[in-house]
Amino acid sequence: MPREAAEHVAACLVLAELRGVRSHGVTRMPVYVERIRRGSMDPKATPVVLRETAAVAVMDARNGHGIPVGAQAMDLAIAKARAAGVGVVTVRNSNHFGMAWYFVKRAVEQDMIGVAMSNADSFVAPWGAGKRYLGTNPMAVGIPAGEEVPIGLDMATSVVAHGKIKLAYDSGQPIPLGWALDASGAPTTDPAKALEGALLPFGEAKGSAISLIIDMLCGPLAGALTGPFIAPLFTAVDRPQGLGHFFMAVNVAAFADLATYKREVDEAIRRIHALPPAAGFDRVLVPGELELEREREARKTGIFLAEPAARDLEALEKSLNIA
Amino acid sequence: MPREAAEHVAACLVLAELRGVRSHGVTRMPVYVERIRRGSMDPKATPVVLRETAAVAVMDARNGHGIPVGAQAMDLAIAKARAAGVGVVTVRNSNHFGMAWYFVKRAVEQDMIGVAMSNADSFVAPWGAGKRYLGTNPMAVGIPAGEEVPIGLDMATSVVAHGKIKLAYDSGQPIPLGWALDASGAPTTDPAKALEGALLPFGEAKGSAISLIIDMLCGPLAGALTGPFIAPLFTAVDRPQGLGHFFMAVNVAAFADLATYKREVDEAIRRIHALPPAAGFDRVLVPGELELEREREARKTGIFLAEPAARDLEALEKSLNIA
Repeated sequence: MPREAAEHVAACLVLAELRGVRSHGVTRMPVYVERIRRGSMDPKATPVVLRETAAVAVMDARNGHGIPVGAQAMDLAIAKARAAGVGVVTVRNSNHFGMAWYFVKRAVEQDMIGVAMSNADSFVAPWGAGKRYLGTNPMAVGIPAGEEVPIGLDMATSVVAHGKIKLAYDSGQPIPLGWALDASGAPTTDPAKALEGALLPFGEAKGSAISLIIDMLCGPLAGALTGPFIAPLFTAVDRPQGLGHFFMAVNVAAFADLATYKREVDEAIRRIHALPPAAGFDRVLVPGELELEREREARKTGIFLAEPAARDLEALEKSLNIA
Repeated sequence: MPREAAEHVAACLVLAELRGVRSHGVTRMPVYVERIRRGSMDPKATPVVLRETAAVAVMDARNGHGIPVGAQAMDLAIAKARAAGVGVVTVRNSNHFGMAWYFVKRAVEQDMIGVAMSNADSFVAPWGAGKRYLGTNPMAVGIPAGEEVPIGLDMATSVVAHGKIKLAYDSGQPIPLGWALDASGAPTTDPAKALEGALLPFGEAKGSAISLIIDMLCGPLAGALTGPFIAPLFTAVDRPQGLGHFFMAVNVAAFADLATYKREVDEAIRRIHALPPAAGFDRVLVPGELELEREREARKTGIFLAEPAARDLEALEKSLNIA
């Protein structure tokens, strides 16, 4: 993989570890390497811009890794937003793009509102359906602030991550009702049955609609595949994933006086901090605040790697003959 | 009110009735009229474009009704998207804009993806807080299809509408846990306590984040007020609301071959229809399908008006001396 692309992959995985988002950290390395070894992902792919206007562009990742093309697409959206006020860039023929916040952060650092979305292979039942169809289709949005932390949403559109079901299964614990369906479409508390069935979307019908919209923006709009046709990252390592992404940057300065905007966002965040906590909570946070606290702490103390992740990295080290 | 503006208000309220979205139908007429009578909303306001680039614009509603300025703002976003691929228009100094789908429909009819958002006065507790701060901040998204119905999301970002709590209160029924908090920040099943407390956001922390993002896009970005400073529609009729909106149109043809895109969206909708229903459901619908079915039926059979709405209209008829 060219150095610049490899650095994006490394930076994204390490940022996920720093923020405590372990599911998107270095545990992804083995499957990325496996896909390169099998030829189902092209490490040397050079993404191309297929068409372009003043404010939008369509990119083809040419089956490269999703992280470097994602950074390139967001940077193009940012450049367009600087000139036109808003920029939208879609990507087709791509693969897993890691943690969505990695891209949004680039926009926020330029005083822009950033949006990043990806579709993914089927694992979630649309609202009312008894079978998986949608991906966990993640969405991240970043709202730059002034002195306060930026408002940072980075979420899957399922109630919980697949990893939480797996964890319950491994530890022999039941899962709460409302997380998943069994293969017959009935609600289940048995993690084994859930793994054969489907996850449920967050927020019932509303979250399901948001997930479907993400699949349409990253699929038909971007010229990429939709959920049921996307090759699963871990279980179809011989096939290119063929998924798509949607990136948007909104240049705050094209709409508002930047200093006034920042003061108002800061004031909103401070007002939310000052709200009385609900029963069971000890403080009120804005989205992304916890992750940023973890990141600041980890930059001082280092990253804690769980045993399986450490073993995976050691195994890669040996098989690739690198220190 | 100038004829064109009045026609937008009438069309939006009637479309809400046709779609069975009664909360946003003709029951809103009395408060709109009351605000005009008291001078807190200017029926003759001429919205202005304050600044503009190839792809974005900022509008000032000058304290006019939210529906006509919303239609004008969405039409401007559509015109920009036709030239630049995407258009974003924000609106400040506005008032309640009715049913968000009214604006998104205009984009969908031009083969564009439409987004409409508004902020609103405080009624929802952010995730982890025990007190209202956010509005019910609605969001609508429309995804044009080919032969199938467009995918149409139109939602409040609270778990349920305020009207459902009121209905339970009026009929002496308890509300489910998870809908609302009492004034002390504790979960409640008592609708009377809920009305003094706060609604909860849909989808827990994720939905709360989406609601806050809408408040930031429609508030600081648009140059409008945020939740706690917006005058409540019904209980502060002497004050302009001062809220803001965010509209976006994405021109499908700038990204994809339109016929291919439409075929792929149609195929996705048909695949979802063909999924086995989950336990408790008899068919699987896409978002907006039920509302469109109601609309088609009501266009044949007419609109059913509940007694209170009919009485309100009769009272208006008398007081305004119109037939």
